[in-house]
Amino acid sequence: MDTTLWLALIIVQLSAYFYGVYGEGNYTYEIKTIDVPIDHFSYTNDATFKLRYLINNTFASSNDHESPILFYAGNEGDIELFAKNTGFMWEIAPKFKATLIFAEHRYYGHSLPFGNASYDSPKNLGYLTSGQALADYALLLSTVNAGNATTRARPVIVFGGSYGGMLAAWFRIKYPHMVAGAIAASAPVRQFQGVTQCGIFNQILTSVFRSAYTPECSSNIRNSWTMLQNHSTSADGLRVLNEKFHFCSNLTKASDVTETFFEYLTDVYGNLAMINYPYESNFLAPVPAYPVREFCGRLAQNYTGTELLDHLQSALTIYANYDGKATCLNINSSYDGSGIGARGWDFQACTEMVMPMCSDGVNDMFPPQAWNLQDYADKCFKKYGVHPRPHNALVNYGAEFLESSITNIVFSNGLLDPWTGGGVLRSTNAKIKIVLIPEGAHHIDLRASNPKDPETVIRARATHTQCIREWIDEYRKQRKNF
Amino acid sequence: MDTTLWLALIIVQLSAYFYGVYGEGNYTYEIKTIDVPIDHFSYTNDATFKLRYLINNTFASSNDHESPILFYAGNEGDIELFAKNTGFMWEIAPKFKATLIFAEHRYYGHSLPFGNASYDSPKNLGYLTSGQALADYALLLSTVNAGNATTRARPVIVFGGSYGGMLAAWFRIKYPHMVAGAIAASAPVRQFQGVTQCGIFNQILTSVFRSAYTPECSSNIRNSWTMLQNHSTSADGLRVLNEKFHFCSNLTKASDVTETFFEYLTDVYGNLAMINYPYESNFLAPVPAYPVREFCGRLAQNYTGTELLDHLQSALTIYANYDGKATCLNINSSYDGSGIGARGWDFQACTEMVMPMCSDGVNDMFPPQAWNLQDYADKCFKKYGVHPRPHNALVNYGAEFLESSITNIVFSNGLLDPWTGGGVLRSTNAKIKIVLIPEGAHHIDLRASNPKDPETVIRARATHTQCIREWIDEYRKQRKNF
Repeated sequence: MDTTLWLALIIVQLSAYFYGVYGEGNYTYEIKTIDVPIDHFSYTNDATFKLRYLINNTFASSNDHESPILFYAGNEGDIELFAKNTGFMWEIAPKFKATLIFAEHRYYGHSLPFGNASYDSPKNLGYLTSGQALADYALLLSTVNAGNATTRARPVIVFGGSYGGMLAAWFRIKYPHMVAGAIAASAPVRQFQGVTQCGIFNQILTSVFRSAYTPECSSNIRNSWTMLQNHSTSADGLRVLNEKFHFCSNLTKASDVTETFFEYLTDVYGNLAMINYPYESNFLAPVPAYPVREFCGRLAQNYTGTELLDHLQSALTIYANYDGKATCLNINSSYDGSGIGARGWDFQACTEMVMPMCSDGVNDMFPPQAWNLQDYADKCFKKYGVHPRPHNALVNYGAEFLESSITNIVFSNGLLDPWTGGGVLRSTNAKIKIVLIPEGAHHIDLRASNPKDPETVIRARATHTQCIREWIDEYRKQRKNF
Repeated sequence: MDTTLWLALIIVQLSAYFYGVYGEGNYTYEIKTIDVPIDHFSYTNDATFKLRYLINNTFASSNDHESPILFYAGNEGDIELFAKNTGFMWEIAPKFKATLIFAEHRYYGHSLPFGNASYDSPKNLGYLTSGQALADYALLLSTVNAGNATTRARPVIVFGGSYGGMLAAWFRIKYPHMVAGAIAASAPVRQFQGVTQCGIFNQILTSVFRSAYTPECSSNIRNSWTMLQNHSTSADGLRVLNEKFHFCSNLTKASDVTETFFEYLTDVYGNLAMINYPYESNFLAPVPAYPVREFCGRLAQNYTGTELLDHLQSALTIYANYDGKATCLNINSSYDGSGIGARGWDFQACTEMVMPMCSDGVNDMFPPQAWNLQDYADKCFKKYGVHPRPHNALVNYGAEFLESSITNIVFSNGLLDPWTGGGVLRSTNAKIKIVLIPEGAHHIDLRASNPKDPETVIRARATHTQCIREWIDEYRKQRKNF
């Protein structure tokens, strides 16, 4: 065998090893599909589609009935992305001799109920709901993990982060016979109207930017909106912006600035806070360690005039071009290349996942914008032909006094994560565990362990593992009693 | 005022009083409706319909936030029938200063999503599912009993008998944030494939008939099938049957006997056992006290030949003509006049409520008939154009080891009730209460108290009341902790 090939193989294997331990994953799995009804909740038609899931059985005990299943409740994107970014599950699987399953959420990745026509109209897209997704997962589990009158199914622990964390919690709430417990990381299950104030998200976000490097970071951002808007009203101003920011498509009218670019910036700031991990990562975008600090390092003093624009542009490259591959700034989607399904999520946000957001420009760094359900609903109807049901999630899953009537869920939240404002942060119920991670960004606890992990993240993972052990023991004990 | 009218009024009021205490009800309520989506689980269309509910606020405390709501999860029929036959709720409402709500199940009574066209095709009828009905109830409760971030909603206790009992249990399981506890009376939540043996129902039923008067009762019934079948094969035989039984429409062919009449008899035996109450009642039909004993009193010796037919005919009048109003025997529906929605239930039995039944003629008094899912499914498709999803209820609600992961449900079962075989009869979970009523028929514990109630029924109701009190206390305590 050629020595060069040998060396290459060794390098690949070494990097695979380090990836497996520290990184975003060279994890192995089989890709399978299962036929599920497009509509679990009516008998108006029998159509089915292929839901994709990933499975790894290499750690499982040969005695199937003892071996747990660690199940990831897929969220808004290709499930492979989440499998690769949920290293915690891969790390504990050998300890628990567990089977790993990552289920893809319908309408994302390759799990498209109507193929390429899935997003065509509400007639096709209307089955994109959390309830239908949970029913997919339940059917999948009941198929791969069937119990019967005398033999109970294997214990299942469900995991998820962000919307996936909401699904994990809701899965335990709605199907308690099917999952022994849930690790719901950074799950904003309370981010609904009447439960959480609409301004909290932007206040936490602003605080993260204010405290990351110097307080000037957030005040520069606060000042930038007016400056950008001023530039938007003249041809000269637009020319300046186009020259400074190198957009992939030149901005040609005011709304390109105040709508498209503003939305992009807002998304980027939110995303930067979410992925503000203490090490290089590539989840929503390739970014350095502590990307908010890096970003704010470039907005560290009080800038005015075009100097502010220059520094903002430079700071943005932390998110938009950290790998140096971008030749221009694409502001049409802050998610590009990440595999996250922005369109699908946008539809969900227009139907049941109506999460009120607002800003006042005083307690946060954003242009003042009140929450107006009617405007929001009108836009949704114009875009998708649907009327939001803003109370649906609350009616269906609860959120106000949620913790009092449910069991075996860990709600973990990083205090540096803007979504934490809509999380479950306290409980008087001993069967609901609250884990706060002061130095944590968005579901960092579900990621693979890393030498740079803060102590609080390490402790959070230890708590998860302890709870999982208890839930499995409890489940096995119940089984013996029957 | 005319004295006769006065006297008439006094008599009406007195009988109303005694009805209220002992009887099937002169209960008062307002009839209201609420607009609910036809499809809670998709956004393919926005159509709504009017769901009917009954409400009584006369017992409730003026301090609304303390006062509980006693909520009946309506089952397969006009909700007024269930309100009138659930005297237990009316009796405890004053003690708890509670509001009473009885919600009608979609597609029954006056709650028809597509009006007169509701039963036309699966396209319209397909939204008749337990999940959609529970979502109706959740939406109703969230509307009449809205909580918010600081004020928790009033405690709700859900009640139901039979299918309504299944819904009550499932409501607590699926919406634990919305109901503090459930009284699930005679709820066969385990009467599904792979969980409960298909023969149990008919074995219990046979045992009730064997022990009601003399053992000859069940052996006469067992012998009757062959005799009836023999008569079905000749014009002479059919003539004899027509003369003996006075059918409303003469039987003219073999299948009129072996299908229509057999089905009717099977239903009647089942119904007689279910309503085998120790006092006169009028739920599925007007019947005397202990109707099975009355029935079996007319089949008390070993009869053969046409003598058996004569006695069977005489016995049937206990069910079919106890009030003496029938001029002929209508075998097209055993439910006639009761308001129970046989057609809707038949559709549900063909979709998700697939409850395997079988008989062997040895351990039961019925013609041997194996359970054959394929035949069953074929018949359903022929009748309604739908394919059953026989595992749906198990996947959705659990049943096998159900009791281990849920809380605050009383499962009560009368041991004289054939549905008890599919009930939850044991639990290792201290938060799930099992109540067995040795002398009880179908959900007798939910009926108004009666001087003829056996001691075990009185004790069952005391347990219910105690549990309700505990659940309300627990709920209030949780509220204080938030």
